[in-house]
Amino acid sequence: MSVRVDLNISLDGYATTTDQTPENPFGDDWSRLVEAYVATRTFRERVLHDASGEGTTGVDDAHAQAYFADVGAEIMGAGMFGLHNFPDDPDWRGWWGDEPPFRIPVFVLTRRVPHPSIEFDNGTTFHFLSATPREALARAAEAADGRDVRIGGGPTVVRDFLREGLVDHLHVGIAPILLGRGINLWEGLRGLESGYDVTAETAESGTIHLSWRR
Amino acid sequence: MSVRVDLNISLDGYATTTDQTPENPFGDDWSRLVEAYVATRTFRERVLHDASGEGTTGVDDAHAQAYFADVGAEIMGAGMFGLHNFPDDPDWRGWWGDEPPFRIPVFVLTRRVPHPSIEFDNGTTFHFLSATPREALARAAEAADGRDVRIGGGPTVVRDFLREGLVDHLHVGIAPILLGRGINLWEGLRGLESGYDVTAETAESGTIHLSWRR
Repeated sequence: MSVRVDLNISLDGYATTTDQTPENPFGDDWSRLVEAYVATRTFRERVLHDASGEGTTGVDDAHAQAYFADVGAEIMGAGMFGLHNFPDDPDWRGWWGDEPPFRIPVFVLTRRVPHPSIEFDNGTTFHFLSATPREALARAAEAADGRDVRIGGGPTVVRDFLREGLVDHLHVGIAPILLGRGINLWEGLRGLESGYDVTAETAESGTIHLSWRR
Repeated sequence: MSVRVDLNISLDGYATTTDQTPENPFGDDWSRLVEAYVATRTFRERVLHDASGEGTTGVDDAHAQAYFADVGAEIMGAGMFGLHNFPDDPDWRGWWGDEPPFRIPVFVLTRRVPHPSIEFDNGTTFHFLSATPREALARAAEAADGRDVRIGGGPTVVRDFLREGLVDHLHVGIAPILLGRGINLWEGLRGLESGYDVTAETAESGTIHLSWRR
């Protein structure tokens, strides 16, 4: 069992964007940050349910495939689930739609507990817990039953797990753009490379894929 | 004539280090930041005057060779020359030793002018001027006589030239380490990628070479 992280960041380390507006709720920067990932055949099949077979099939797609392979459970922050959008609506099932792409147990970290679990037909179940990274990981590892646990995000949750030394494999897809602001994945992680082998690979899209393994 | 920049930075963007002590005046982080560059055959020949032929000859060395090729003049900050070390000693000739590796006219930006030029036998001459980036570039371009002008550093000087849109080719060698503090090359440069093609290449050492060209 490995604990894995996959994130898209900018060249200057930002994993979130700041140009959202009511008219453009994702913002232009987000499209630029995830452009190469969203263009892959795997993303189109797995997240957009596009069975046309279109999409890129190179280095970016190999990493997208790896993202979904062999994961038995996921941990994410409340923001990534979408809990903050409608915190008081008991019928709110998150913003991942009717077919969340996870298809595994997902553990959502929140202080708003107890919160009933939410189950989807495709195998995705969201469980809500208030726990330290180590406690959450124990729960997720049990659910993963020998397969990997992915720390899905957002970046502050990922940093908590990295700082505690709980991550075995960190993969970042670095878009060659400078965002200048947002939440910086690298903040507070001076010296993280110690104990990891770091390798890099550049995709046809210009995305730099960095893998930290120990 | 192109205006070029070459710098070594950490994965989190830092071009300077902060762990210097009186006993260890460069600090350990500096060695880690420039390790791959210093290991090249070109650096050993050109900077250390080591004629043994030892040193790496792969991707890192190709970039080190490019660093020295076709440059007709250089611009650097007063700190990179070493002016701050002994600002009131008229005999101080900078900290580059008796054979500075430049072998071309070098324009040192400082408000301490007039300051006599300093000439070395190997073709290096340091000139001192108080000027805007654009003014300094005009002087250096004239001296370069059709060859390239390199903005040598430090990083705050480089950022000034980048912000003014004066740089044609930016090369950074990114060491896969997180320094967490220092002067960040990317600060204040949001959107810099616009107008550049950005390509990346990974060396045998793990250094990621990023080239921005327009």
